[in-house]
Amino acid sequence: MLAWLRRLILGSPLSNERAMHERLPKILALPIFASDALSSVAYATEEILLILVLAGTAVIDSRLLPAIAIAIVTLLAIVVTSYRQTIKAYPSGGGAYIVAKDNLGDYAGLTAGAALTIDYTLTVAVSIAAGVDAIISAFPALAPHRVPLCLALIGLVTVINLRGARESGLLFAMPTYIFVASAFTLIVVGLYRLATGGFTVAPPPLESIPHQTRMLGLFLILRAFSGGCTAMTGTEAISNAVQAFRPPESKNAATTLVTMAVILGTMFLGISYLAWAGHVIPMEQGTHGYETVISQIAKGVFGKIWFYYLIQGATAAILILAANTSYAGFPRLASIMARDRFMPRQFYNVGDRLVFTNGILFLTVLSAILIIVFKGIVNALIPLYAIGVFLSFTLSQYGMVKHAIRLKERGWNRSVLISGLGAVTTGIVTLVISITKFTGDKPLFTLPINGHVYTITAGAWIVILFIPLFSYVFMKIHNHYITLGNELRLTPEDKFKPINNIVLVLTPSLHRGVLPALEYAKGLSPDVRAVHIDTDPIDSRLLEERWETWGGGIPLVILESPYRSLVGPLLKYLEEVKRERPNSLVTVVIPEFVSTKWWHRLLHNQSGLLLKFMLLFRRDIVTANVRYYIQK
Amino acid sequence: MLAWLRRLILGSPLSNERAMHERLPKILALPIFASDALSSVAYATEEILLILVLAGTAVIDSRLLPAIAIAIVTLLAIVVTSYRQTIKAYPSGGGAYIVAKDNLGDYAGLTAGAALTIDYTLTVAVSIAAGVDAIISAFPALAPHRVPLCLALIGLVTVINLRGARESGLLFAMPTYIFVASAFTLIVVGLYRLATGGFTVAPPPLESIPHQTRMLGLFLILRAFSGGCTAMTGTEAISNAVQAFRPPESKNAATTLVTMAVILGTMFLGISYLAWAGHVIPMEQGTHGYETVISQIAKGVFGKIWFYYLIQGATAAILILAANTSYAGFPRLASIMARDRFMPRQFYNVGDRLVFTNGILFLTVLSAILIIVFKGIVNALIPLYAIGVFLSFTLSQYGMVKHAIRLKERGWNRSVLISGLGAVTTGIVTLVISITKFTGDKPLFTLPINGHVYTITAGAWIVILFIPLFSYVFMKIHNHYITLGNELRLTPEDKFKPINNIVLVLTPSLHRGVLPALEYAKGLSPDVRAVHIDTDPIDSRLLEERWETWGGGIPLVILESPYRSLVGPLLKYLEEVKRERPNSLVTVVIPEFVSTKWWHRLLHNQSGLLLKFMLLFRRDIVTANVRYYIQK
Repeated sequence: MLAWLRRLILGSPLSNERAMHERLPKILALPIFASDALSSVAYATEEILLILVLAGTAVIDSRLLPAIAIAIVTLLAIVVTSYRQTIKAYPSGGGAYIVAKDNLGDYAGLTAGAALTIDYTLTVAVSIAAGVDAIISAFPALAPHRVPLCLALIGLVTVINLRGARESGLLFAMPTYIFVASAFTLIVVGLYRLATGGFTVAPPPLESIPHQTRMLGLFLILRAFSGGCTAMTGTEAISNAVQAFRPPESKNAATTLVTMAVILGTMFLGISYLAWAGHVIPMEQGTHGYETVISQIAKGVFGKIWFYYLIQGATAAILILAANTSYAGFPRLASIMARDRFMPRQFYNVGDRLVFTNGILFLTVLSAILIIVFKGIVNALIPLYAIGVFLSFTLSQYGMVKHAIRLKERGWNRSVLISGLGAVTTGIVTLVISITKFTGDKPLFTLPINGHVYTITAGAWIVILFIPLFSYVFMKIHNHYITLGNELRLTPEDKFKPINNIVLVLTPSLHRGVLPALEYAKGLSPDVRAVHIDTDPIDSRLLEERWETWGGGIPLVILESPYRSLVGPLLKYLEEVKRERPNSLVTVVIPEFVSTKWWHRLLHNQSGLLLKFMLLFRRDIVTANVRYYIQK
Repeated sequence: MLAWLRRLILGSPLSNERAMHERLPKILALPIFASDALSSVAYATEEILLILVLAGTAVIDSRLLPAIAIAIVTLLAIVVTSYRQTIKAYPSGGGAYIVAKDNLGDYAGLTAGAALTIDYTLTVAVSIAAGVDAIISAFPALAPHRVPLCLALIGLVTVINLRGARESGLLFAMPTYIFVASAFTLIVVGLYRLATGGFTVAPPPLESIPHQTRMLGLFLILRAFSGGCTAMTGTEAISNAVQAFRPPESKNAATTLVTMAVILGTMFLGISYLAWAGHVIPMEQGTHGYETVISQIAKGVFGKIWFYYLIQGATAAILILAANTSYAGFPRLASIMARDRFMPRQFYNVGDRLVFTNGILFLTVLSAILIIVFKGIVNALIPLYAIGVFLSFTLSQYGMVKHAIRLKERGWNRSVLISGLGAVTTGIVTLVISITKFTGDKPLFTLPINGHVYTITAGAWIVILFIPLFSYVFMKIHNHYITLGNELRLTPEDKFKPINNIVLVLTPSLHRGVLPALEYAKGLSPDVRAVHIDTDPIDSRLLEERWETWGGGIPLVILESPYRSLVGPLLKYLEEVKRERPNSLVTVVIPEFVSTKWWHRLLHNQSGLLLKFMLLFRRDIVTANVRYYIQK
C-alpha cells in the first residue's frame, strides 16, 4: 500500500541507463536553472525602494533608483563574463565550492560550501515567500494564510523534485516563458503609456508607508544598492550544473548563461524604470493591504483586467519555480561535498528516481524552518540573502584568478583581468552588504540584560555567524570519515580468523515452541548450552526430567534467581562465560512466539523482548530470535 | 540510575524465603482487610439520606432511616455468619470465585470473577473519592482539585502496595484504629449531647438541597436501602485472603471477620442514629459548599475544634486505606484466575518485592479511568457499586449450599440452612439493587436518536453489561491457553532434529568493520555466503578484487540492483535461496557500527537497520547483528 502510494506520487524507479536521457536541452535548462535569477526582478526593485522611502517619498522621485539599477546591471555583466570562464574551465560543474577548494584550498572551499548551503536555503524561502506575496497582492483575502501557503508550496516543489529532473523541466518551462513574455509586454506597454501621457498608480494606504524618515546619506544609498543586489542571486546556478546539460555541456551552459543575463538585465532595468517613472511608493510587508511593486505597476498600466491576473500568476509561478533552482542545485552540491567527505555520505547516493533524495529532503526541512521563523515575510529574509551569494562569487572568481595564473594557458592574463575585476567588485559588494545589512528592521527576539530589553533584529549577522559554524561542522564530519577510514582500512597484517562462538539458548520451559530454537542452536557451534532461570523450583525439576527425552544432548544450565528476576542472573552468567573463554563471542538465541491475533501478544510474557533489549548494548554479544508461529 | 530510583521507591528485592515472614498477625490483618468494610460508614448513611430527601425533608425525620439501618445490620449478621463457614471450608482462601467455580462450575466462577474484578475497581474509585470528600468538607478551598487529588492518592496507594504487604500493614494499622476510636468517641459524645439537650447541625445552603420531590413509595424506600447496602462492601475481603494470615489461618481469619462485623455494625447504627436524631440534611455532591454527613454531625457535636479535624483526617485516611483492601485482594484473585488460565499469565507471577506487581498496576489503571470518567463524584459511582458485591455474595453462598450437600460432613444441614438463608437474602438484595439502581441520577452522555436527545445516566446497567463481557473475555483467554498448550505439548513423535542453516552476510564493502561479521558467520554453518548489492559497478569490482585476500574463502554473491534499491534484490535472493533449499532456516548476519558519539550515527547509512526491519516479519529468517565498536 505504502509502496503503491509512493509510486503514485513519485513515479516508478528509474534504471541507471536512463541517467543520460535525463540530460537537459538548452530550451529546458534555461527555465530550470535561470528561474531563480529571472524571478529576482519580482522583488529586487522593491527592496531598493523600501530603503529609499526611509528618507522620505521625495527621494523616490529623484534619479537614485535608475542609477542604482544601472550599477547593478553593470555588476551583473562583470560577474557573467567572469563565470563564462569558470564554465569552460570546469566542464564537470564549477560551483564556487569546487573552484575555491581546487584553487584556494579546503578552508576556502568549505567557506564557499557553507555560503552556498545558506544561499540555497534562502533562495527557497525568499522565492516561495515572494511568490505567495504575488498571490496575496491579487487576492488580499488570502493574507492571513501566508505561512501555511508557503509551506504547502514548498511541499509541492519537493514532490515534483523527488519525481526527477526531466519531468520538472517540462513542467517548469512553460511558466518561465510566460513570465518573461508577460514581463516584457508589461514593460513595452508601460513605456508606450508613459510616452502617451503616463499611467497612474493608486497611492498606498497611509498606514502602510514606513513612519521613520532618515537623512539620505551614503549608508542609506549603499543599503538600497545592497537590497537591489538580490537581483543577481541565482546567477551561479548554471555554472554549478554544467553536467545537467546535453553535450557539448560547457558551450551550451555558457550560451544559456549569457541568454539568461541579457533577459534578466533588460527586465530589471525596465521594471525599475517603470517604478520610478510611475512614482510607485513601496509598502511595508506584513501589514494589511500589502501590495507588491510589480502588482502596483501592472494595475496602473493595465487596470484590473485579465492581463493583470496573468502577470501576477506568472510572477507567482516563476517565483515558486525559482525555489526549484535550489532543488536542482543544492542536492548536487551536497553530493559533491559528500563525495569529498565533508557532508554525510547519505547525500552522495542517487535515489531510485535518479535524484538526490536526501539532499532534496534536507533542503525542504531547512527552508520550512526559515519560513516559520520569519513568518514568510520576504523583507525580513532579505538582509540574510545576497551576502552568501556574493561571498561565493568572490571566492569563486578569486579562485579563477589563481587558476589562470597557475595554468598559464593561452590568453591567461586576459582571464586574470576579467576574474580579478569580478573578484574585486563582488568582494567590495560583499563587504557593503555585510555592513549595511548587518542588522535588519524586523525584530527576531528580545534579550533582557541588566534591566534593559534589547531587541535583536534579523540581519546579515546571522549568516556571518552560520558560515563559520557550518564550515566547522563540515570539518568535523571530514575528520570523522578520515579517522574512521584509517581505522577500518585492511592491511596485510589483518588475517581472516574464525571466531569461537558460545551459543546460549534461553529455555523457559520445554515445548514445541522452544524446540526449533534448540535445534537451530545445535547447528551453530560445538559449544551450545540451554539456559534456564529458576524462578520456580518445581518447574525447574520438571524441565530437568523432560530434558533427557527432548533436550537433544544439549547441556542444560539452571541459574539460581532468589529474587525471581530474569535479567540479573543471565547477565551474571554471561560475565562468567566471558571470563572462562575470553576471546569468544556469545550468541544468545531467544525463542519467540508469533501469533496471528494481536491480542494474543498480551497473554504471553514479553520477557524475551526485555532480555533482548538488555543485551542490546553489551559488547561481544549477538542475539538471534528464532520464531515459532502459533497455528491457531 | 533507573534501578536506583526503583529501589528507593519500592525497596530492595525480597527473596523467596521471606514469603512466610510476610504473613500478618490479626492485629495487622484487621486494619488491612477490614478498612474497606469499616470505612463504608463514611458514605453509607449519606447514600440512604440522599434518596430519602428526594421525597422531601420531612421524610428524613420519620423513622425510615433507623429502620433501614437495622435491616442492613441484620443482613450483615446473616452474611458474616455464612462467611465464617466459607473460611473454614476454604482455608487456602475462599473468595467467591473459588467457591462458585468449585461448586457451581466454570461459568458461575467466571461470573463471580467478573463481579469481583468490577467490585475491586469500584472500591478503589469510591473509597478514594469519598476520602477526598472528607478532605474537601474540612477544607472547601480544595473543591476544584477533586480529580487530581483522587489520582495523586491512587498513585500513593499504588507505590505503597508495590513495596509489599508487611510494610503496608504497619503503615495502615494506625489510621484505621484512630478512625475506629474517633468514630466511637463521636458516637458516645453525640449520644451524651442528645441526652442532655441535643446538638444543632447548621442547615445546608438552599441551593445544595435536591430540587425534586417525589412520592415516597416502595421503590424509593428500596432504593434508599440499596444505597445503604454499600455499608456491606468489603465484607468478603477477609475470606479471600485467608492465606495472608498467620497459622492457624482459618481460625484467625474467622475471628477477625466477626470482630470486624461487630465494629462495623455498631458504627453504622451509631452514625445513622446521630444523623437521624440530629436532623441532618444531605447535600448534593459536586456542588459548591458540599459537606459530608459525617462532617455535619461532627461539626454539630464538637464544633470546629481540633477533634473535628481529627475525625475528618481519620475518615480520609481510612477511606484511602480502604482502597488498599482492593490492592490486597484483586492481585491475589487475578493470580488465582491466571493460574486457572482465565487471566493473562503475567498476573500469576510474584514480583521481586513478593507482591503481584502486574495485578497492582492493572487495578491502578482501571480505577484511575473510573475516577476520570465520573469526575471523582462518589454519588455518581455508587449506583454501579454494591451490585457486584451482592452478586458474588449470592454465588458464593449458593456454592456453599451445594458444597455442604455434596460433602455431608457433620452438622451439614445446619450449614445448608445458614448458607441458604444468606444466598436467598443476598440474592433478593442483588435483584433489588439491579432494579432500583438500574439508572442513576448523574448524566453520563447524551444520545441523539431521531431528533430526540436521550440522556444516558450512569447506573447498575453498566455493571450488568460488563459482567458477561468480562466473563466472555476470560473464556476467550482460557481457550487460547488451552489450545496453545495442546499445540505446544511435546509427544513421543516429536524428535530433536538438527536444522539446515544457510548464513548470508550482508557485505556493503570490505573493511575492518565487516571482517568480524564474516569471521563470525564462517563458524555458524558450512553454507555461508557473503551478499553484496551492486549499486555502483566500480565498488563491486573493487570488492571482488580484494575478496581474494580477506574474504576467508567465503563465496561472494553479487546481486544486481538496477534501481539502486537494497531491499528489493535481497528479498528476491532470499526467495531463491528458500526455493533452492526448502527445509532450511536462513540466518542473515548484518554488520553494525557502534560509535561512542551520538552524532556519528547520522553520518552512516542506516541501511542495516532498514533491512533488519524489513526481515522482521518474514518467516524462517533469523537476523543477527555483529557489532564493530569504533575506537575513536
